[in-house]
Amino acid sequence: MPHISVKGEKIPASPIRKLVPFAEDAKRRGIKVYHLNIGQPDIPTPEVALEAVKNINVKVIEYSHSAGIESYRRKLVQYYNKVGIDINYEQMIITNGGSEALMMAMNVCLDSGDEVLVPEPFYANYNGFAVQSDVVIRPITSTIENNFALPSIEDFERHITPRTKAILICNPNNPTGYLYSKKELEQLRDIILRYDLFLFSDEVYKEFCYDGEEYHSVLNLEGVDENVVMIDSVSKRYSMCGVRVGAIISRNKEVIKSALKVAQARLCPPYFSQVAAEAAIDAPKEYFEEVYDEYLKRRNFLVENLNKIEGVYCPTPKGAFYTLARLPIDDCDRFARWLLEEFEYDKQTVMVAPATGFYATKCLGLNEVRLAYVLNIDDLRSAIKCIEEALKVYPGRTNK
Amino acid sequence: MPHISVKGEKIPASPIRKLVPFAEDAKRRGIKVYHLNIGQPDIPTPEVALEAVKNINVKVIEYSHSAGIESYRRKLVQYYNKVGIDINYEQMIITNGGSEALMMAMNVCLDSGDEVLVPEPFYANYNGFAVQSDVVIRPITSTIENNFALPSIEDFERHITPRTKAILICNPNNPTGYLYSKKELEQLRDIILRYDLFLFSDEVYKEFCYDGEEYHSVLNLEGVDENVVMIDSVSKRYSMCGVRVGAIISRNKEVIKSALKVAQARLCPPYFSQVAAEAAIDAPKEYFEEVYDEYLKRRNFLVENLNKIEGVYCPTPKGAFYTLARLPIDDCDRFARWLLEEFEYDKQTVMVAPATGFYATKCLGLNEVRLAYVLNIDDLRSAIKCIEEALKVYPGRTNK
Repeated sequence: MPHISVKGEKIPASPIRKLVPFAEDAKRRGIKVYHLNIGQPDIPTPEVALEAVKNINVKVIEYSHSAGIESYRRKLVQYYNKVGIDINYEQMIITNGGSEALMMAMNVCLDSGDEVLVPEPFYANYNGFAVQSDVVIRPITSTIENNFALPSIEDFERHITPRTKAILICNPNNPTGYLYSKKELEQLRDIILRYDLFLFSDEVYKEFCYDGEEYHSVLNLEGVDENVVMIDSVSKRYSMCGVRVGAIISRNKEVIKSALKVAQARLCPPYFSQVAAEAAIDAPKEYFEEVYDEYLKRRNFLVENLNKIEGVYCPTPKGAFYTLARLPIDDCDRFARWLLEEFEYDKQTVMVAPATGFYATKCLGLNEVRLAYVLNIDDLRSAIKCIEEALKVYPGRTNK
Repeated sequence: MPHISVKGEKIPASPIRKLVPFAEDAKRRGIKVYHLNIGQPDIPTPEVALEAVKNINVKVIEYSHSAGIESYRRKLVQYYNKVGIDINYEQMIITNGGSEALMMAMNVCLDSGDEVLVPEPFYANYNGFAVQSDVVIRPITSTIENNFALPSIEDFERHITPRTKAILICNPNNPTGYLYSKKELEQLRDIILRYDLFLFSDEVYKEFCYDGEEYHSVLNLEGVDENVVMIDSVSKRYSMCGVRVGAIISRNKEVIKSALKVAQARLCPPYFSQVAAEAAIDAPKEYFEEVYDEYLKRRNFLVENLNKIEGVYCPTPKGAFYTLARLPIDDCDRFARWLLEEFEYDKQTVMVAPATGFYATKCLGLNEVRLAYVLNIDDLRSAIKCIEEALKVYPGRTNK
């Protein structure tokens, strides 16, 4: 039997995936499980998108352009203009979700063994993309004490080696909900210029910024057009995670040219999905307002009520729909499993994402969990109650 | 400006893509271009698939299972049983087309620098996948004199090094249309067992076998369950290239387990597309019979009439919908471009795929072109007439 690749072993097992069987067991025992662990919103997909797919009237579902249907790319230009980003349709390639976009960015910009600096905690799937592209993630730790703000320039510089080739951020951030300020982005600009690095920015949560704080795209940083690669996706914006449509965007012609070759090798993004994504751009203003108001309400409710629980600290995230909270617990992996295996309150429990999975540095995040506020207020209330009761009896409770 | 990766440079530019601007120019000059260059069939997608998408009645397009919708995988089991392959739904992962399936196979089975033996000419996009997975393709030449049959065991063995880790075949073959016999597959089995290799088999054209010849899947080879990885796609079977749904199938549990981690990193395959693919399995028998008869008629017409042209030799392909023909020309790249730039017959011309793009060995295939018989008989007749007239006046014509 031939040996399989070490690549598979290098991809860390997802701590959330490991919990799934325990959640299923709990459900079999008749316990209601509130899923605060995943970023699957309950918000409806815009009707105009669903209708567009129903109204497709072609006889042959043919390959589309490898860079994506041209009418869709042209329409995206309008969308980006509206959110204050000036690009043209030849500066983007439509991808199979943000996932493929980021993998393309790594494949196109980085060689085997190159290093990319990523503020941790970070979206755990970055690990999988890095392994497949044979590049190395170097984590720069941000802390809950600092609300997960951008680590200092010095922290970044300390980790730069001759193999460092890029910095990757997620803004607004998954898992922390942190929204980088203009000043922080300008600090990043200074670093990438000084060390001649690429700046990859995953901006799939850009519609979700709260408290009057503004989203700043790396595409609007001056003087770094050749360095900047933006990753986008329609998954969260239109609550259609299952369509798998994203984009890689850059003003660096060499990057797009090379990405197009990669895109051509896999032929094209999916047709129906592109039709849905194109139509979704015309979703009425009210759709976004309702969605936005709903998330804001949920965030406020979650943060306020979590902080009322003794020993819990939850920063107020300014973006996305996650928060990374600190709990009075010994080990978030143990706690998350215990919640599903041994705890119940009124026949209910909660599934959370242990924060350890978002840190590349071992033993960080042990007393933190990521909570996605993708449930309605009533469910959130019940879920928070469960957490409160659970912390009263959890055997691994600590004094902060 | 940071240097981009050498990966992009390593992906050979597609000779077909380079021709596209010349085809567009010709069309602007009012010339009708018959596209024999691509595998985009004109056959309608089954109605049952299109209807299923129209009838989708969900409010939120959510992530599906990373391995694909379970009902689809279960239904695929029935489909595979029907074509004589005994597998279960946990031995497969649904992918973004055959493209992602093959890239997954490489990523999961091969480490950076590993080598994979591929009979050439081969599907040019294998190069792109290999570069992204950082593995090296070693071509083993097959020849038109031999109808592109499997190279000898000795040919394979001569290219085996300590880094050789797999053999990749496409069966029925794109670009040659060659269908490997049971005996040839058993030869491959002997090699992979002797050298402990993986055997990747791209079987996306399996429904298209002619003249009573049978398709033999590598999944039916005895004693190599741990070595065999099959790549499939619905693109050609149901003429829905644009949906991008494929599968990676193996009885090797480690391979599937590792592939699932890769699949989880990119979340899931596209939802609408999976619905279409699942429904297509129920397309009526008549659909396949009509499609099959149509391709057979086209193949016979094309082969017969090409061979009537002086100096042309076209083997009779037993599968897929391509043929690789030898023409009395000096250089297929020059010829293909000349057809679009300088030639016309009755305001018509032809776009062909230069065979050089399918060979990894330099200067092979110079006098060969790949022709896809994806056009109706009337168009094929006009296209062949163009080729006949073109060969009379092409300045680079050779005496065979």
